[in-house]
Amino acid sequence: MSQTQDGLAEVRALTFDVFGTVVDWRSSVIREGETLGQTRGLSVDWAAFADAWRGGYAPAMNRVRRGELPWTRLDDLHRITLDRLLDEFGIGEALSEEDRQHLNHAWHRLDPWPDSVPGLQRLKSHFILATLSNGNVSLLVNMAKHALLPWDCVISAELAGHYKRDPEVYHKACDLLDLAPHQVMMVAAHQDDLQAAHREGLRTAFVKRPLEHGPDAIPDLTVDPVFDLVADDFHDLANQLLDP
Amino acid sequence: MSQTQDGLAEVRALTFDVFGTVVDWRSSVIREGETLGQTRGLSVDWAAFADAWRGGYAPAMNRVRRGELPWTRLDDLHRITLDRLLDEFGIGEALSEEDRQHLNHAWHRLDPWPDSVPGLQRLKSHFILATLSNGNVSLLVNMAKHALLPWDCVISAELAGHYKRDPEVYHKACDLLDLAPHQVMMVAAHQDDLQAAHREGLRTAFVKRPLEHGPDAIPDLTVDPVFDLVADDFHDLANQLLDP
Repeated sequence: MSQTQDGLAEVRALTFDVFGTVVDWRSSVIREGETLGQTRGLSVDWAAFADAWRGGYAPAMNRVRRGELPWTRLDDLHRITLDRLLDEFGIGEALSEEDRQHLNHAWHRLDPWPDSVPGLQRLKSHFILATLSNGNVSLLVNMAKHALLPWDCVISAELAGHYKRDPEVYHKACDLLDLAPHQVMMVAAHQDDLQAAHREGLRTAFVKRPLEHGPDAIPDLTVDPVFDLVADDFHDLANQLLDP
Repeated sequence: MSQTQDGLAEVRALTFDVFGTVVDWRSSVIREGETLGQTRGLSVDWAAFADAWRGGYAPAMNRVRRGELPWTRLDDLHRITLDRLLDEFGIGEALSEEDRQHLNHAWHRLDPWPDSVPGLQRLKSHFILATLSNGNVSLLVNMAKHALLPWDCVISAELAGHYKRDPEVYHKACDLLDLAPHQVMMVAAHQDDLQAAHREGLRTAFVKRPLEHGPDAIPDLTVDPVFDLVADDFHDLANQLLDP
């Protein structure tokens, strides 16, 4: 694919989904759980715990979307799910308030996929690089410090008061960057995020992350023909965008 | 001054005023004006023009603050003032719409003071570095790309829907960073900005920029005793914060 053929030469900013696309949340949360578990002498299947925690994410956001909860930042949604899961996994008694706060902030200390930082560094000279994540601003800022992610701008659902895939989030990004939707490309490993961005007029790049849900999961790597680019990782994304 | 003595050890984030504190708006706008003027064959006192343009800034924001204008981003306030000044300086006929847009975006291409980037780079390893500026987000992002300012987060009056020195702006920064006011230090070359931040509980660092208004202006470098730090430039600020 070439920029010219696809009209991608007008793209000025790349907006990135973060969880799963830029960082490997599952391995990182498992590692944080194991470290805390060893310190506290707990026997827990932390892979199952990580999956269940992430599994609580969409239902929690839907409670906000439906108006059952007022706007609630993702840190607080994570904490609601965490408190429930600690009981379900039978370790609610073992962890102090301080432990819970520390574990909840595991989402601030997620590690990037190996290609994320070098790929972003290459892209940074040609494009504005922004997050466009459901993570709250402080989570994204702390994660960027931890993982050395070279964002030009941290844009969050928190700034729109709406979670993806609500259209308001994509429009808020374009508005803050003062760009038309076709000048912004959404980069994500999740088809529904890209389809929602596409509906609002943004360009889309699908980056395959087959290990997001672990080595035993069967990944859904279905390519929707509406996607403007499909890339194997951020090196491949940079190759396609910088040397079309 | 030492961090411990002043309780500054709790500071996690530095929020920076930008125009005048980080970048030398006056020299940069003069340079942009001269370049455009030469191309178009105009004879204008661009120093007087720059001062008049900046002079329109506070009155324009006050129109928003008083509710005479709805929320208006700084780019658009700059443009209102620019159109008036072009007529007042007798060059309204000489500049096309494209010229006006280009000149208005001079504020996106301001150059940093010589110590700004190296000072910020030193501070970045120990603190979250955020803008806290009346400039709109896109202005600040474009300026950071131009001047290589290593922000962790771009926070703007635009996100609060209020201009400094309204208290809402300082609270918005603390809220987005999820920090208490005493964990945030406002860095500025303008006493009233710091005094407003101090009233909301933020820590304050006054950085002297005696040349902000040009070599012939008499700078007001009065130090209010409420300021937590006073620095000659960003090297000095880094010295005081990192090696107290």
